[in-house]
Amino acid sequence: MCASALSKLRHVMFAVFLGLVAIGASLAGAQAQSDPLSSWTDGATKKSITDFVARVTTQGGADFVPAEQRIATFDNDGTLWTEQPYYFQLAFAFDRVKAMAPQHPEWKTKQPFKALLDKDMKALGASGEKGLLQIVAATHTGMTTEVFAKEVLDWMATARHPRFNRPYNSLVFQPMLELLAYLRANGFKTFIVSGGGIEFMRPWVEKAYGIPPEQVVGSSGVVKFELMKLAKVEFIDDGPGKPVGINRFIGRRPIFAFGNSDGDLQMLQWTTAGPGARFAGIVHHTDAEREYAYDRQSKIGKLDKALDEGKTKGWTVVDMKRDWKKVFAFEP
Amino acid sequence: MCASALSKLRHVMFAVFLGLVAIGASLAGAQAQSDPLSSWTDGATKKSITDFVARVTTQGGADFVPAEQRIATFDNDGTLWTEQPYYFQLAFAFDRVKAMAPQHPEWKTKQPFKALLDKDMKALGASGEKGLLQIVAATHTGMTTEVFAKEVLDWMATARHPRFNRPYNSLVFQPMLELLAYLRANGFKTFIVSGGGIEFMRPWVEKAYGIPPEQVVGSSGVVKFELMKLAKVEFIDDGPGKPVGINRFIGRRPIFAFGNSDGDLQMLQWTTAGPGARFAGIVHHTDAEREYAYDRQSKIGKLDKALDEGKTKGWTVVDMKRDWKKVFAFEP
Repeated sequence: MCASALSKLRHVMFAVFLGLVAIGASLAGAQAQSDPLSSWTDGATKKSITDFVARVTTQGGADFVPAEQRIATFDNDGTLWTEQPYYFQLAFAFDRVKAMAPQHPEWKTKQPFKALLDKDMKALGASGEKGLLQIVAATHTGMTTEVFAKEVLDWMATARHPRFNRPYNSLVFQPMLELLAYLRANGFKTFIVSGGGIEFMRPWVEKAYGIPPEQVVGSSGVVKFELMKLAKVEFIDDGPGKPVGINRFIGRRPIFAFGNSDGDLQMLQWTTAGPGARFAGIVHHTDAEREYAYDRQSKIGKLDKALDEGKTKGWTVVDMKRDWKKVFAFEP
Repeated sequence: MCASALSKLRHVMFAVFLGLVAIGASLAGAQAQSDPLSSWTDGATKKSITDFVARVTTQGGADFVPAEQRIATFDNDGTLWTEQPYYFQLAFAFDRVKAMAPQHPEWKTKQPFKALLDKDMKALGASGEKGLLQIVAATHTGMTTEVFAKEVLDWMATARHPRFNRPYNSLVFQPMLELLAYLRANGFKTFIVSGGGIEFMRPWVEKAYGIPPEQVVGSSGVVKFELMKLAKVEFIDDGPGKPVGINRFIGRRPIFAFGNSDGDLQMLQWTTAGPGARFAGIVHHTDAEREYAYDRQSKIGKLDKALDEGKTKGWTVVDMKRDWKKVFAFEP
């Protein structure tokens, strides 16, 4: 075949290809209509999400946002997975202390390690924040980031949640998995912005949430060139630290953010303070039966100011019991 | 049409669609064979790039790397754009001092500002690193990140490079633009890892390089919740800081990295120290006619240790004069 005929054939084939891509896209759209958010109860909460996505993705609409600006940020603990009876990263730290104890005979007499090994929760509580930091330092520092990542994955594969008796990473919220996938199918780029440790999350979040490590913003310890984790806090990605972390890592303001506690308030404020269409969501834990019920009085994931502000400002407050047909994928 | 017939039609159409996607992909491949790296001279340098990409993208090959792990990092100054006669961010700072001078009458008598305004380069040089930091502090802090971004864009639209008399962002290297696009077409995710200021780069790199702000790692000042830039250095993303920055922002080791100076040495070392196929590239500025020629003795972009190590270890050292048919897009 002569070159020009080949070139012409290519052009024709390419036009056919583009036409079929369009058909394929509309078929995909038809499939999507089989409800990408099937674990969400039909109602105002779900509608606030689908309405927002329709507004910012409608070409030529007043609120249209180009795909590269569709940044969506999610808190992790309590928003994407359970955070009770205490943060799972803490459960990891406690389990690491137990596993490391044979190499640390001095812990038998040294607080807060003694209390933890003796399961003396009263003494452990008495060691306070200082004790907690000692436990985190002992279990989270002094190794390379690669060794630490392996420890996290090994723990995730073997440890079990005390109430559900399942791996911790199976306690991710099914409706939120659907929401993440739905946003990505609509051109959003999804990020985690969590007060949890960045090195604790990165090894497993890609598999759990489809969010790659480079889209995780979290708190961090100081790391040196050899990528040795040092016992010095570098950045606390919580409260006012969340917009700072988003600015540092992402470099643009999200148009969509989801949290569940007062630690997410500034992220939600900053997200909604930008121009154009904005979405702020709060997971309100109202379901003691399927998960947990807590808010203003809780030590973990206290939701007080953000709940009031969310109601005043018309943010989407998810009532877990009412709005989610299914909380976890493993439910019957 | 009954539902099951419709469903069947959808399945058939979808199969056709998938088939045509495959044809489209191979056509795209055929188009790519019209040379995505056309500004690169045919030879060993170019071949080292295409060979590497072929190795890591060949399904079933010994060196195959899944797309999500195809992380490629690029230094910016001197690697993606020119850095002579001095870093462009410095030119920005100098121009800002001139623009801000009417609001700062005290600068008429205060060094290093006086020297800069008097164009007294000797006195400016005498003010040393301390003077430089004063200029950076005066021009880069005390405003919000959004105001600063606008200042950068305004400057980029009006300022001209002293030798080429063109906007600074037109002094991006055409062969590197082709390389970035080629890598992305092969499933790589491209990042900038630069000693330059992260807030200085983010406003313009997406348009210039197709790299979104969230894929830029750079040095940063401290930023508070109101996203006010404070006069305190937070992170220097240079030398040993580059692997630290990559770990913090990206969270995985690149398999492909490109630099041009000793400040990139640790990034190249860390990239190549991982298992499997690895690519390290160095831009050697050897073309005084079309751009600049400098290496071991240069104050800007000194290339000495990395040049020796690159030659010893078989890294790809780009000889600009020999390997690039075209340096800038505006060349005839």
